[in-house]
Amino acid sequence: MTEMQRLGERAREAAYQLGAASAGQKNEALESIAGALCRRAAEIIEANAADLVAARENGMSQSMIDRLSLDEKRIAGIVDAVRQVAALDDPIGEVLGGATRPNGIRIVKTRVPLGVVGIIFEARPNVTVDAAALCLKSGNACILRGGKEAIRSNTALAGVMRDAVAQVGLPADCIQLVEDTSRESANQMMKLSGYLDVLIPRGGAGLIRAVVENSTVPVIETGTGNCHVFVDASADLDMAVKIIVNAKAQRPSVCNAAETLLVHREIAERFLPAAARALAEKNVRLLGCGRTCAILKGIEPATEEDYATEFLDYILAVRVVDGVDEAIEHINRYGTRHSECIVTSDYANSQRFLQLVDAAAVYVNASTRFTDGGEFGLGAEIGISTQKLHARGPMGLREMTTYKYLIYGEGQIR
Amino acid sequence: MTEMQRLGERAREAAYQLGAASAGQKNEALESIAGALCRRAAEIIEANAADLVAARENGMSQSMIDRLSLDEKRIAGIVDAVRQVAALDDPIGEVLGGATRPNGIRIVKTRVPLGVVGIIFEARPNVTVDAAALCLKSGNACILRGGKEAIRSNTALAGVMRDAVAQVGLPADCIQLVEDTSRESANQMMKLSGYLDVLIPRGGAGLIRAVVENSTVPVIETGTGNCHVFVDASADLDMAVKIIVNAKAQRPSVCNAAETLLVHREIAERFLPAAARALAEKNVRLLGCGRTCAILKGIEPATEEDYATEFLDYILAVRVVDGVDEAIEHINRYGTRHSECIVTSDYANSQRFLQLVDAAAVYVNASTRFTDGGEFGLGAEIGISTQKLHARGPMGLREMTTYKYLIYGEGQIR
Repeated sequence: MTEMQRLGERAREAAYQLGAASAGQKNEALESIAGALCRRAAEIIEANAADLVAARENGMSQSMIDRLSLDEKRIAGIVDAVRQVAALDDPIGEVLGGATRPNGIRIVKTRVPLGVVGIIFEARPNVTVDAAALCLKSGNACILRGGKEAIRSNTALAGVMRDAVAQVGLPADCIQLVEDTSRESANQMMKLSGYLDVLIPRGGAGLIRAVVENSTVPVIETGTGNCHVFVDASADLDMAVKIIVNAKAQRPSVCNAAETLLVHREIAERFLPAAARALAEKNVRLLGCGRTCAILKGIEPATEEDYATEFLDYILAVRVVDGVDEAIEHINRYGTRHSECIVTSDYANSQRFLQLVDAAAVYVNASTRFTDGGEFGLGAEIGISTQKLHARGPMGLREMTTYKYLIYGEGQIR
Repeated sequence: MTEMQRLGERAREAAYQLGAASAGQKNEALESIAGALCRRAAEIIEANAADLVAARENGMSQSMIDRLSLDEKRIAGIVDAVRQVAALDDPIGEVLGGATRPNGIRIVKTRVPLGVVGIIFEARPNVTVDAAALCLKSGNACILRGGKEAIRSNTALAGVMRDAVAQVGLPADCIQLVEDTSRESANQMMKLSGYLDVLIPRGGAGLIRAVVENSTVPVIETGTGNCHVFVDASADLDMAVKIIVNAKAQRPSVCNAAETLLVHREIAERFLPAAARALAEKNVRLLGCGRTCAILKGIEPATEEDYATEFLDYILAVRVVDGVDEAIEHINRYGTRHSECIVTSDYANSQRFLQLVDAAAVYVNASTRFTDGGEFGLGAEIGISTQKLHARGPMGLREMTTYKYLIYGEGQIR
């Protein structure tokens, strides 16, 4: 048995205990975690300081260092998030349906935890606490494998959380951190069938691709968003400008930001100059198709590859299309099934777009930036799924569960 | 682009059209299929006869030949099944939830098809029609890859169905058969990410393992059932005998048949001889633990491996346990999370078993044989999932769908 399998074995054992815990016990554990994170903030910040020293020595960029840093204020934010998770309804035990069958057996479909959830993520230490809290509340044990840049911070955070959970009588092993941050440990997690019920990669496209291609454990793909805004001929053009500026530039580094603007040819000459001006104010660089470049002189041409790229930056591809059908076709070809928007005042086109665009979230007259667990009212999110199996779009506590059928009989046989 | 990718491309195109089809159009297509299967029964039986000749030449076993054979009566049965699928409610378009958020955006979570479903199965030609009908009704295009033994039958069936679908104006390519039945074609399907939204293997444990280990497409594992019946100290022993005989011997070759009997030590001396007599009448061979062998003289000892084996035969492993907790532990260690049963008259033990046993279907006082789409009232089933992601237990039409969020706004930005 490998070290990783031993970790899996302990997680499974803990998951059985946690699965039977009441909402009250789980909330007590979360409150215990929140309290311990406050009390032991100094030791967490000290561990984080060691990560930061190493990061600077290794020449990490300033923006990455900023994401890695923890201070009193950030820890207070993490603690708040834990308490918010505690305040959410417990999804476990919800009855999802059922029936008494003609032979008298009574079937009750009931929500239960997935069991053991593996999460592979990159450098942000707040994810460690976030993921652990969401797993605990949904009755799942978790095996967390963060990036090597945050290993000292993560070890401190996981240690504090494990102690806090044990203190209220739940198994510490329902939160486990993989201390080996080599590529090999990620590969081992991908092969941990029989221990892990699901593996969720959170991070860049490369990480996600590697997990999808190599995992024998069921995976939930998250986070790649090549999102589009289509401005129809009948659009309110002022609204359209506001939406594309917001979707592109409010926070370009996130998965629900827009990457391509599609414009109906009938309004392209009026709309594109206005949109270009507003986007220029936000320092967005445009890449255009032939028709776009004929209207907006001097911008660079967009390549096929640009249309398929999630820039995550102040860059926007622009294409003029002949109508809603060409827009839908473009989106279904280049999109990543995340979030797509039409700006229109035409009823039929709005319905056509909603029905035919294949994505987790399809918007009429609203920014793609709303695809988010908080904005959707899920309370918290573990990630945004871009696959169709199990969960689609923002994943909250319910999406961290499965169900089982409980069947009550009096000796029925077939 | 490979031949398989071209197939995938055509399936995706067909899926977009089928996804927008109304329930009426889909039912018309199913009725057209049913009618065509009746009308063209002779050509299907002729193709099947050629498969049977080849099967006999290759020395196929009589039971396999029986499963492969088609005649007028079996085709009538297949046609009935298609009409039953047509009669089911259309799952597509069901509103699963939603909310108006504080900023005024209105979110409607709506059931939609998965898109393109790949199914790899073995020799039974009825699966070809069954799977195609369920996919069509749930708005999914399908790519079917059956076993080489049934290739002529499957080609005839798929041809008839494709013609029938085209006749009512839906794309023939929503039903596609992979004509290459080599191992290589199965491997290509497992790598068809971007075209296939899900891959469902239906068949033996070896096939399922190969798909789980090699697929980059999300997989739904089906069908492996190492199921248990636990007879508690307080059980009605007559009822317990009936349940174990039914669960083991009514149809031993299916996944919801029992493979191990667990017996509370307090009643083992009374129960085991009675159970052994009843099982002997059905020609069931027993393999026992030490305590079992001490009571039932002359039976063979059970090994660790026996407890982990899905016999699919008239063989039953037997183990005496100290109580409900040891039974639960045994089941969670050796079981395949399919169907598990406790026979008891004790309330607390029934609740403990229901809560702590980790399986798709957990029974009190009823045979495990009820885990079935028809018995559960799903109307039809594409298989029984033994994984936790997406669908668990019998999978009907709803389990062949996903959802998307439709969001209606008036220019909201973040």
